[in-house]
Amino acid sequence: MTACAAACADAPSDETLARRYPLDRWYVAGFADELKDQPLGRRFLDQPVVMFRTPDGQVAALEDRCCHRSLPLSRGTLEGQGLRCGYHGLLFDALGRCLEIPGQPKVPTKARVRAYHLREKDHILWIWMPRQAGTAPICEPPDYPVHDDPRYRFGHGSYHYNAPWQLIHDNLLDLSHLGYVHLKTIGGNARLHMNAPTRVSSEGLGVTVVRHMAGSTPPPTYRAAWPFGETCDRWQEIVFQPSHLAIWTGAMAPGEAALDDPARGGFHMRGFHGITPESETTAHYFWSMSANRHPDLPDTLSTVIEQTRFTFDEDKGVIESQWAAMQRSGGPSAWVDIHTDAGGVRARRVISGLIAAQQVAAGAADLSPSAAAGAVDGVVA
Amino acid sequence: MTACAAACADAPSDETLARRYPLDRWYVAGFADELKDQPLGRRFLDQPVVMFRTPDGQVAALEDRCCHRSLPLSRGTLEGQGLRCGYHGLLFDALGRCLEIPGQPKVPTKARVRAYHLREKDHILWIWMPRQAGTAPICEPPDYPVHDDPRYRFGHGSYHYNAPWQLIHDNLLDLSHLGYVHLKTIGGNARLHMNAPTRVSSEGLGVTVVRHMAGSTPPPTYRAAWPFGETCDRWQEIVFQPSHLAIWTGAMAPGEAALDDPARGGFHMRGFHGITPESETTAHYFWSMSANRHPDLPDTLSTVIEQTRFTFDEDKGVIESQWAAMQRSGGPSAWVDIHTDAGGVRARRVISGLIAAQQVAAGAADLSPSAAAGAVDGVVA
Amino acid sequence: MTACAAACADAPSDETLARRYPLDRWYVAGFADELKDQPLGRRFLDQPVVMFRTPDGQVAALEDRCCHRSLPLSRGTLEGQGLRCGYHGLLFDALGRCLEIPGQPKVPTKARVRAYHLREKDHILWIWMPRQAGTAPICEPPDYPVHDDPRYRFGHGSYHYNAPWQLIHDNLLDLSHLGYVHLKTIGGNARLHMNAPTRVSSEGLGVTVVRHMAGSTPPPTYRAAWPFGETCDRWQEIVFQPSHLAIWTGAMAPGEAALDDPARGGFHMRGFHGITPESETTAHYFWSMSANRHPDLPDTLSTVIEQTRFTFDEDKGVIESQWAAMQRSGGPSAWVDIHTDAGGVRARRVISGLIAAQQVAAGAADLSPSAAAGAVDGVVA
Repeated sequence: MTACAAACADAPSDETLARRYPLDRWYVAGFADELKDQPLGRRFLDQPVVMFRTPDGQVAALEDRCCHRSLPLSRGTLEGQGLRCGYHGLLFDALGRCLEIPGQPKVPTKARVRAYHLREKDHILWIWMPRQAGTAPICEPPDYPVHDDPRYRFGHGSYHYNAPWQLIHDNLLDLSHLGYVHLKTIGGNARLHMNAPTRVSSEGLGVTVVRHMAGSTPPPTYRAAWPFGETCDRWQEIVFQPSHLAIWTGAMAPGEAALDDPARGGFHMRGFHGITPESETTAHYFWSMSANRHPDLPDTLSTVIEQTRFTFDEDKGVIESQWAAMQRSGGPSAWVDIHTDAGGVRARRVISGLIAAQQVAAGAADLSPSAAAGAVDGVVA
Repeated sequence: MTACAAACADAPSDETLARRYPLDRWYVAGFADELKDQPLGRRFLDQPVVMFRTPDGQVAALEDRCCHRSLPLSRGTLEGQGLRCGYHGLLFDALGRCLEIPGQPKVPTKARVRAYHLREKDHILWIWMPRQAGTAPICEPPDYPVHDDPRYRFGHGSYHYNAPWQLIHDNLLDLSHLGYVHLKTIGGNARLHMNAPTRVSSEGLGVTVVRHMAGSTPPPTYRAAWPFGETCDRWQEIVFQPSHLAIWTGAMAPGEAALDDPARGGFHMRGFHGITPESETTAHYFWSMSANRHPDLPDTLSTVIEQTRFTFDEDKGVIESQWAAMQRSGGPSAWVDIHTDAGGVRARRVISGLIAAQQVAAGAADLSPSAAAGAVDGVVA
Repeated sequence: MTACAAACADAPSDETLARRYPLDRWYVAGFADELKDQPLGRRFLDQPVVMFRTPDGQVAALEDRCCHRSLPLSRGTLEGQGLRCGYHGLLFDALGRCLEIPGQPKVPTKARVRAYHLREKDHILWIWMPRQAGTAPICEPPDYPVHDDPRYRFGHGSYHYNAPWQLIHDNLLDLSHLGYVHLKTIGGNARLHMNAPTRVSSEGLGVTVVRHMAGSTPPPTYRAAWPFGETCDRWQEIVFQPSHLAIWTGAMAPGEAALDDPARGGFHMRGFHGITPESETTAHYFWSMSANRHPDLPDTLSTVIEQTRFTFDEDKGVIESQWAAMQRSGGPSAWVDIHTDAGGVRARRVISGLIAAQQVAAGAADLSPSAAAGAVDGVVA
């Protein structure tokens, strides 16, 4: 086609992808209850993917592009044996093999689409994004037992971001913005956030930020869900991994327990945040929020979810505005770091270290695995 | 102007156009009843064109860009002598000559805009897109007598496509998609379409696809317009030419006549499809649908037109979605052809052959005309 | 950030800006009453700027980008001491110095944003766009005493244009378009405009166009505001300066006074037009319209402003359509000039002369100032 030279980008190669994203890794693809009787199309790491549930309840993911004429398979229909394209009816199974070309006796071997490994675990969909197309996962998806913990109930949502994924990491790893951005919900006192004792630590690819705020004023969402008095002892515990973050926050009556006591009571909000690049400059953000309920109060989960959504809407406004400004007049090369950036800066080093290690391995295939591993470990030392 | 270096593209040269589109050819520019008392602006083959009707009823077409300050002339007004620009009042006749510059005694010779040959024929507007700017047509526009055939009445419509024009050819030349895309109107049984005997043949620049489906279930639009029984004998006859297609479909009572009998009765839907590139990646699609009426039924033309429009809306959704996918992750280089693609593949060869012949002629001006003609003929051999 | 190589443009250098725009010059940034209790963000000459009013009533302008994480400061809040970022609370004073980083004892010296010189004068906001970042104005902003002249009252408005700023100059310097574009308000007779005696003159960087139309038909806006008879003597006086234009128009009873008598009576519409590039291809257009009132009629200012806004809406439609056409199919290289273009052509020479002089000065720093000045003067000789 004459126009394709101009407008049809080739799909990015494995090498290109390895320069953009950490690979051989599970990324969040959505939530399990999103897959019912319709296929669902999303793009992850520059790759169009269609996800669906087979009649026996298994989840599957294929390249979202029919090998015949490129129609997204997410426009097709689910049948007993697989997913049928909505244009000329080619039928694909969960491994991407074409089972039928209507009206044609023989199905050529090359009539197939790429399959991805998709797993449903703890109500989360995890997709394996391999370094080399077609290779199998080398580990299991992360655990997130909170979703099935009887002490909590959860709700979830998702966003499409017109901003690079790492700006969302920055935001979540520095909750000092709560006092400026989220005053109507979970903000509370800005000074207290900024001056609170904060510990930042690293372990493997993880980065942990813990902030304790004793004697804090309970913010609106906390007051709506729990019978706090004038003040509370408040904690924020953020654990970053390259593809997701767990942010466990909460508060209890002043002095009720030590702030780092794992058995502390009070009100708990346990957030799960899957941040998956759609492209270098756009991202998916999948979140869930689990909260406990005070025994003497009516169920406030819907209020907590509604206010969480409002809060995350505010973040989206800030981050997309930040990115628009960066595109117009210069990126992070001129950024001045401040004390609260420690967690975000470490997370950026983890990501750039993983990408650098992929280049090392790609450039020198005879390098021992430990050399590449060293490149990764080094970044967070 | 300082910004023009960055943002003002020069109009494409004749050479550039010859690499993109078959030229020296009539393309459909719209329908005759679109030209009344207002000028109409459209872009064809990367060239902005304004069309209008002069007081004596003739149709005319000019470059849609005043030579003075580039305002589209389609924003102007029609006067007895021609088209007056809506900015400073320059008046142009149907040949593109500036007749008047208000307030200025002398009109410089260079004050003119390019004229195009536009013809009104069979209720269709045809525009000649020349290989060399300013040259005259070397043939008459195609005939389409169906619009004035007393056995039929017709309605028409048009679409602007965010997709290259050849994807529309592909769609129309392979009606096997009816069973997957158009179940609500003209679809009928998918398997029957896919397995129906289909003949593909070529003659000159034309490609013909004929599909016969005896014993077919009458689809909804057919049932609405004709008193069919349980089954019918159905035909689809597609004739592709580089700038337009005629698609004659219909059905009759089982065994009423031979399916290829030109005098067969029953219900007839005769579609005209003018596909004109707007640019390499966008297209105009002008269609009409003519249908006959059963003598015992009330007039169902408006129903047929409404359902045709609904059907073509479905095609637009599919094709634009297909193009969006192609832009993101790779074009037709990875396409796997199937049995029903024969017509579309031949049509693509016709177009690429015409374009290749234009390169041959441009690169070797001393080549005999027959050499260039040979390059064209070769592609469909 | 990995995506920045692709998507984060560096802010343009002083050299780049000097190739695009006349610098060391006051541009209109808005109207004084726009600055109340909220910061206001706009982009001028490719530079994001936030403007605000300090508690003591002074106006200030800073780079609209926090030095910490690039959030536009226009999303922040005003406090007694300055403007606080809406993300992590950095506080900046009117000179761009960071006064506070919440929670951090020491503010590093590099934590600052660029400040611009902003002045409030005659109800207009003027911003100094320097040749070299950080240098101070070398003159005062222009005077515009009409806004405080007791004979007039004024209203104002603004537009964001998807078109380069100089197309607006062209439009305003050639009011012969009134008879074709603005028939519903201030147009009047097209022929009379086109044939009216017109004087074009230059002085320094200014270009003046004067058109007198004795015996003109009063157009609708004039009739609405003043008890004219069948005809009137009408004048249009346009004074262009590189950053703004004053357009003084009006009409009086036929023969009431000489058309160039500064003391002539009748109806006066005094327009102020600040045209400030946002980028090379987009512009801000800030306008005010001052009119006098007939002693025997009710106040018609609101009618005059409403019709002025309608008129300027029409211009925006024309100019953005013109620019869209220029981007698709060629810029001004093919323009045919006519008699009414004299003013616009001179204005373009002024702008290109100023830009050329900036290149001369940049390329040969040892050139005497008079040489650069000569380059400017030359263009309008």
